Amino acid sequence: MSAEAYVDGVLRGDRVVLARAITVIESELPSDGDLAERVLEGVLPRSGGSRRIGITGVPGAGKSTFIDTLGLHLVREHGEKVAVLSIDPSSPISGGSILGDKTRMERLSMEEAAFIRPSPSKCHLGGVARRTRETILLCEAAGFRNVIVETVGVGQSETAVRSMTDYFLLLMISGAGDELQGIKRGIIEMIDGMVINKADGDNKPRAERARVEYSNALHLFPMSPDGWSPKVLTCSSLTGEGVPEVWESVLEHRAQMKANGHFHDRRRRQALNWMQELISLGLEAQFKSDPQVSARLPLMTEEVRRGHMSSFSAARELLALFHPARKGSE
Amino acid sequence: MSAEAYVDGVLRGDRVVLARAITVIESELPSDGDLAERVLEGVLPRSGGSRRIGITGVPGAGKSTFIDTLGLHLVREHGEKVAVLSIDPSSPISGGSILGDKTRMERLSMEEAAFIRPSPSKCHLGGVARRTRETILLCEAAGFRNVIVETVGVGQSETAVRSMTDYFLLLMISGAGDELQGIKRGIIEMIDGMVINKADGDNKPRAERARVEYSNALHLFPMSPDGWSPKVLTCSSLTGEGVPEVWESVLEHRAQMKANGHFHDRRRRQALNWMQELISLGLEAQFKSDPQVSARLPLMTEEVRRGHMSSFSAARELLALFHPARKGSE
Repeated sequence: MSAEAYVDGVLRGDRVVLARAITVIESELPSDGDLAERVLEGVLPRSGGSRRIGITGVPGAGKSTFIDTLGLHLVREHGEKVAVLSIDPSSPISGGSILGDKTRMERLSMEEAAFIRPSPSKCHLGGVARRTRETILLCEAAGFRNVIVETVGVGQSETAVRSMTDYFLLLMISGAGDELQGIKRGIIEMIDGMVINKADGDNKPRAERARVEYSNALHLFPMSPDGWSPKVLTCSSLTGEGVPEVWESVLEHRAQMKANGHFHDRRRRQALNWMQELISLGLEAQFKSDPQVSARLPLMTEEVRRGHMSSFSAARELLALFHPARKGSE
Repeated sequence: MSAEAYVDGVLRGDRVVLARAITVIESELPSDGDLAERVLEGVLPRSGGSRRIGITGVPGAGKSTFIDTLGLHLVREHGEKVAVLSIDPSSPISGGSILGDKTRMERLSMEEAAFIRPSPSKCHLGGVARRTRETILLCEAAGFRNVIVETVGVGQSETAVRSMTDYFLLLMISGAGDELQGIKRGIIEMIDGMVINKADGDNKPRAERARVEYSNALHLFPMSPDGWSPKVLTCSSLTGEGVPEVWESVLEHRAQMKANGHFHDRRRRQALNWMQELISLGLEAQFKSDPQVSARLPLMTEEVRRGHMSSFSAARELLALFHPARKGSE
């Protein structure tokens, strides 16, 4: 299939072509690189129009069920199209969870207006994040006005998901003590909203207490530069109670950010950071695949680790081996 | 002066040679690069033996006075030698503060056993941080068993200071409301200890209340992987009350980290990260100074900013311009 055929199919909203286009993007074959780039360039003018929502959560918070319920709410109550993507840097290890995730969103996955795509396995985080970013563009071009990106696993991909979304939500549950259960230090600082899930039955008062507690804790943090104070809400993915309010808060955040210009700023900053990150990843790959560097790197790393060589000298020597100016003149 | 003469002087603890060696390290002259490296390699076997303590603080917390008092306590009560270094990424702007800092530690700067060195000005943070890291090694080789690295300004150099120290302390004051006054999001997550300064006179009860409040807030964070829960203490840099307890907490942290192996782990991780960081900085410098890249970079950055080009394509094109393999074969 040609790049044009992919672009046409995606723009028509053809789900089969969309899925195949994503596979091209995810391909590790160098021969697919040019095709991927041409497809991306083709869809770029029609991308960018979605609400990009990132979701992370503590283990056991019921993230998949929450996304299932939220997605269904969007599809059925608001007539929206929803794409769900995931970033799973640990997928090579917990391989089984990929299929698991897809089937756990069992109601949403039956909907014509929903598109669920697990993250590719066997990739380092940089690679997964890059592909997920590009998959967002494809989904947008295919008409999905809502793209939910979820972290799979905890503590590794939050920064990446935050850096590609307009709204970053942390899903919690009550009753796991005073601590921010298992959440990596720093994540609490990057959220736009927090939701205490499983606020149903006997658990409701506990969820409400947790809401107040976390709400107070969040007030100890300085206000983010965009002027938004993260809201803490409760909901039940089981009964659906509170889910409309979560969505309203997402929309409220969006309206406020658009009004004060921070929406556009965040997107622009993300695009530039993403370019910078791709350049850094690319430079690192070029560096590591350099024959002279790769011959010396393991030994020098070991010397630095043992304290036999300064980080400074090791870096200097390796950079001199790599320097293209020097290489070019040889 | 030869590299050997510098190394000998530093190892003898000669303060004049130490100061001159630091100037060599700070030099931007390419011709000094080799000398700097040889000096560093020479002192390396005798470095690493200090307590590396990072200190940051909110504006008005009295950081210089606190360091003055703490340093004096170490020198006079414990017979210790103390070096104070600072990282000031904003020094080109607030140029006056450098001298200000030095004179504000007026008691410590009179002590024979103390060495105070402000950060070099006119450097980007990467450069300043690199030089401060190397200055730590020189001070250690010169016999300073305590090296205090302070951030100047707020919110830019905390990560850098944290990444080169064994213990990272945040200095606060009470009475600036509920918020973590002016402290950048994320800093609170990297500290090993917090001190409420100015706990004297009328302010004492307020400082105690702040201590309890921050202590409670810190409990909401998960314990750090090294098993240490940051302590919150109060002190007065004016009367010296509480300062011995701050130092005891630093030593307690150190003993615990040495016992559980995390001290060594942190140092080793820092050395490897530092090497990686130097390589990244070096690659970036090589990339940006490449004639073909520098000719295209501004235009492509603008295209990405305006959304006319994907980050992906821009990065790909620039990397292809730079790629040494391609260049070499031309």
